[in-house]
Amino acid sequence: MEKYYYKCTNCYETFSAEKIEKESIYLCPECGESKKNSPLKGILTVEYDYEKLKKIYTKENFLRLTAGQIWLYSHLWPVDFNKINKDDLEKLSLPSNQILKYLIDGRELYFQDETRNPTYSYKDRASIIVALKAKELGIKEITAASTGNAGSSLAGICARLGITSHIFVPKNIPEAKRIQIQSYGANIYLVDGNYDQAFDLCLEVSKKNNWYNRNTAYNPLSIEGKKSAAFDIYLNTKGKLPDYIFVPVGDGVIIGGIYKGFLELEKLKLIDKLPKLVAVQAEGSSAVIDYIASETFKFKPAKTIADSISAGAPRNLYLASKAVKETSGFGIKVSDDEILTAQKQLAHKTGLLVEPSCASTYAAYKKEKSNIEENKKVMLLLTGSGLKDFASLKKWNNEPKPKSDVEWINFLIKEN
Amino acid sequence: MEKYYYKCTNCYETFSAEKIEKESIYLCPECGESKKNSPLKGILTVEYDYEKLKKIYTKENFLRLTAGQIWLYSHLWPVDFNKINKDDLEKLSLPSNQILKYLIDGRELYFQDETRNPTYSYKDRASIIVALKAKELGIKEITAASTGNAGSSLAGICARLGITSHIFVPKNIPEAKRIQIQSYGANIYLVDGNYDQAFDLCLEVSKKNNWYNRNTAYNPLSIEGKKSAAFDIYLNTKGKLPDYIFVPVGDGVIIGGIYKGFLELEKLKLIDKLPKLVAVQAEGSSAVIDYIASETFKFKPAKTIADSISAGAPRNLYLASKAVKETSGFGIKVSDDEILTAQKQLAHKTGLLVEPSCASTYAAYKKEKSNIEENKKVMLLLTGSGLKDFASLKKWNNEPKPKSDVEWINFLIKEN
Repeated sequence: MEKYYYKCTNCYETFSAEKIEKESIYLCPECGESKKNSPLKGILTVEYDYEKLKKIYTKENFLRLTAGQIWLYSHLWPVDFNKINKDDLEKLSLPSNQILKYLIDGRELYFQDETRNPTYSYKDRASIIVALKAKELGIKEITAASTGNAGSSLAGICARLGITSHIFVPKNIPEAKRIQIQSYGANIYLVDGNYDQAFDLCLEVSKKNNWYNRNTAYNPLSIEGKKSAAFDIYLNTKGKLPDYIFVPVGDGVIIGGIYKGFLELEKLKLIDKLPKLVAVQAEGSSAVIDYIASETFKFKPAKTIADSISAGAPRNLYLASKAVKETSGFGIKVSDDEILTAQKQLAHKTGLLVEPSCASTYAAYKKEKSNIEENKKVMLLLTGSGLKDFASLKKWNNEPKPKSDVEWINFLIKEN
Repeated sequence: MEKYYYKCTNCYETFSAEKIEKESIYLCPECGESKKNSPLKGILTVEYDYEKLKKIYTKENFLRLTAGQIWLYSHLWPVDFNKINKDDLEKLSLPSNQILKYLIDGRELYFQDETRNPTYSYKDRASIIVALKAKELGIKEITAASTGNAGSSLAGICARLGITSHIFVPKNIPEAKRIQIQSYGANIYLVDGNYDQAFDLCLEVSKKNNWYNRNTAYNPLSIEGKKSAAFDIYLNTKGKLPDYIFVPVGDGVIIGGIYKGFLELEKLKLIDKLPKLVAVQAEGSSAVIDYIASETFKFKPAKTIADSISAGAPRNLYLASKAVKETSGFGIKVSDDEILTAQKQLAHKTGLLVEPSCASTYAAYKKEKSNIEENKKVMLLLTGSGLKDFASLKKWNNEPKPKSDVEWINFLIKEN
């Protein structure tokens, strides 16, 4: 048997890695479908021979590894690491100490801090695997459609490895995100339309030009890459996983990926229970939570300040809702005001400056806290740095008035 | 003997830790002097019983440690780590994998990447030690004058530990840096004047209010904290230090601190040769390099786009120039244009997005490269993330024009 194969999440058909990768297939050849304003159908996932791997990755062996260095458990990745230069791998390593524990609001709270990844967001986990696969196959050009973080992540990771990147963005992309993408030297294409149009255009051009496509959920490795946080959490907690993990959800690829990671830990018998995954969405972009409740999807344009989780048609809708249901998790919606307040409080109380999308997890936690027993271990997933979205920080930091030295002295001494 | 004591770098008088810390002394009680538009005189450094420590920190023992976790070599810090909560220490750990090796411009080049520290700059190394000392002594309020990074660093580190911070900034501070400081919940004081006035005002108010003062170079622990990079470089290179380290120099505290760290490694017999320290300055702010050449200091207002190394009167001038001379290093001046070009090239070639101050090291390296033998190991110190200075990124990333889908397809297909 090959090291891994692909399996359709819709019709469950399996395909050899050779077929999928040689023929540049992304969605299931049997039932795959990418339609405008709709979730993707026939998303493929990577599967391994878990029975065999169980013998290699015993608890004792696995817990000796260092977090943030995925190549240390190479059998669990669809990449031939022997074909990658060791220095290149080092450039892609994540900090090994991403879990921080705070005493906050009278309770212990854990944070998985992804804000210090190479390009300061969780998206690097996906970009890394896609870029490594490109490196293995000798592919020189990768493309993606993006509203911001995925694009800057792919651009930054490609720059590290000397790969050319092509990023398609909607013309109304926030300035800061556009500039991050450009700064890494990516070719940027401003599309006269929304994210959906950028997504479709990216597919069309990449097919014609034979570029490798990282579009989120569409490329199975984008989900695969995002599973690594589950392994890092396992390593950093020495196998004592949180009971609840609050995850910001837009397209649903992060929650789908992390769920896959925990599932694999279970298949390997490294854990016997999955953490409950709590999907956090903005009130103006809640398609996943709505789908969990009603089992129906109806497209509605998304509107929220948290642009990284703004998705009217979550591409990975079905897997995301499965992740919540199968782990006995639940969904929580938060308003934009609650998100901004949470962003401010979190920075003040913890020194963790995060972007609105992941501040939403703290807003949700505050709402839900009283329903969670005190002895449960709760973790919030912080997926992107606050410096990536300067505009939102400006909303709650007014410019103070300057005073002269004498005025300040009088003011400050009197006050104390 | 106590674990450590203080020593004046000017008159060489020594003082007990008890005296200095109980009496809230910063500069040398004998000869210390803080004058407007002048380097500080009588800066104190922390000294240890190196003969004793040599037996504890043998090469074999030391190389087993993990980089980024200073408390693992607790005898080399003026802090009683037993009085600090373990979770708090974890919040202050730096990534363990900060050294990246690239093949660039036909040569191997090493980067020490400080852009993923807790607040995304090297300044965290100083803030961490100052804040830990405050924690040990039960101090609840810390203050600093800052043009940006030192202030946001202190604010962020204090927020992590639940300490109140007071930051004095000149009224013309770049907006992005002001907002970072405020975001962490610091009390910010906009001074109607320049950095010098903010510095003096900060000293005055902190004395009256009995706040702990982190002013750079003024507080000996600000230099002490910055020595940790030398230890991290030692650990990450497994003792095989670079031959040259290019360091961006403004106030001279980073180069002074890293020099002290290497000196200590030498005193402990862990190394037998110090790396040559190369001081990189902007043409419009070159007081340290000028002092090395002429042995005289004359105040000249600084003017450079690289605000983090803009210092007309480097507070740590004498130690900084000593660091260069004693390591047989040298100085290189670069223009603002060269800095911006280097910032762009570095991001494109390496995926490392840094602020102008540290892009200066790459500009200097390109100038100096042909004078350095090929077999020498060269490292550039990257001290701050590019996301901290959005305005400079905007200078070389113009907004592209949107095209319609059809236009893009025609354009892209034709091109290939």
